[in-house]
Amino acid sequence: MGCGNAMKYYDVSMMVSKDMQVYKNKPEKKPIFKIASDFDQGSSHETQVDLNLHSGTHMDFPLHMIKDGQTSDALELSRLIRKVKVFDMTHVKDGIDKEDLEKLVIDKDDFVLFKTTNSFEDTFNFKFIYLKNSGAKYLAQKKINGVGIDALGIERDQSGHPTHKILFESDIYIIEGLRLKDVKEDEYFMYALPIKMPDADALLLSVILVE
Amino acid sequence: MGCGNAMKYYDVSMMVSKDMQVYKNKPEKKPIFKIASDFDQGSSHETQVDLNLHSGTHMDFPLHMIKDGQTSDALELSRLIRKVKVFDMTHVKDGIDKEDLEKLVIDKDDFVLFKTTNSFEDTFNFKFIYLKNSGAKYLAQKKINGVGIDALGIERDQSGHPTHKILFESDIYIIEGLRLKDVKEDEYFMYALPIKMPDADALLLSVILVE
Repeated sequence: MGCGNAMKYYDVSMMVSKDMQVYKNKPEKKPIFKIASDFDQGSSHETQVDLNLHSGTHMDFPLHMIKDGQTSDALELSRLIRKVKVFDMTHVKDGIDKEDLEKLVIDKDDFVLFKTTNSFEDTFNFKFIYLKNSGAKYLAQKKINGVGIDALGIERDQSGHPTHKILFESDIYIIEGLRLKDVKEDEYFMYALPIKMPDADALLLSVILVE
Repeated sequence: MGCGNAMKYYDVSMMVSKDMQVYKNKPEKKPIFKIASDFDQGSSHETQVDLNLHSGTHMDFPLHMIKDGQTSDALELSRLIRKVKVFDMTHVKDGIDKEDLEKLVIDKDDFVLFKTTNSFEDTFNFKFIYLKNSGAKYLAQKKINGVGIDALGIERDQSGHPTHKILFESDIYIIEGLRLKDVKEDEYFMYALPIKMPDADALLLSVILVE
């Protein structure tokens, strides 16, 4: 099993905690932890968590933005276990647009991850860097396989959520909530493993990038 | 990245659903899914889940059975990304004991996964196959690194939870809730990736075994 020897990898998932950053700081989006059992009540300690599936590092499915859209039932795990290209977009202000992407080597079937200044912030920034409508269209024309970003949303402040919809309509997988601070621009092998749930609009992911 | 080419892997995680098997069929242990937002109320569809961290495929930490025991804060991810040995124990009735283990090649620092008849049952069996006290002692003497089983508990019907305690006191990682039906006895490379949470008595895992 040679590929396992001296393997270097990066853990690019977010910690899920009661104080974690959540979209627009909405209190109802904070995970709630409860003690289901402890040693005063029983003979074991068990924790229960109540959380939104769009918390932390996760994958969106079309139902998230499209009525009657596909859900996690359509998941193809092999699309989350594959080569990816990480692009350093820390120079981008506001959002990633077509012009930013035209400078990159992006090919058909690529899975691209965008490292932005978001990765250096642990609190929610209402002006987080996102993928603009024009960038989503460009990626759809390129027929990429998937895209990941280090924000809790792949877009903001675009009426009707065109970035999500363009990507979903082109069957492009969307990963949100990555933490790419320690990862430099390069190619990696990604293991983005979901907690599988049926018929869901999102799935929690744990993601590593292998060098 | 040669090790990624034509890679064959097995997804050995359990689906987390409202109808999934839970320990002793206790209703309070069933995950509860709620719609946090839909297209009648807003512009996106979001699901919330309330679940016990010992649901489905997960890792136990010492706090689960030992007052003031270590929690997920002590997690070393590298111990979950490594070579494992899957042993076919489908011949075992009741529980795995020392005599069953003496027949196997188990070395110091191994991570062993036990495939039992549990993997062929999708409903909770009150007489699930477990690791007996004598088996846990044997593994502790061998100084293994971790053990996984295809039951929601690594033990049952043992007063004081000695199997858990022996393993925890020997710093042996415990994975529960694996699904090994399709995996034959052999060595694999395991990626057991957790949804990271602070100070927890368990973490949800998504696990693949690479051939």
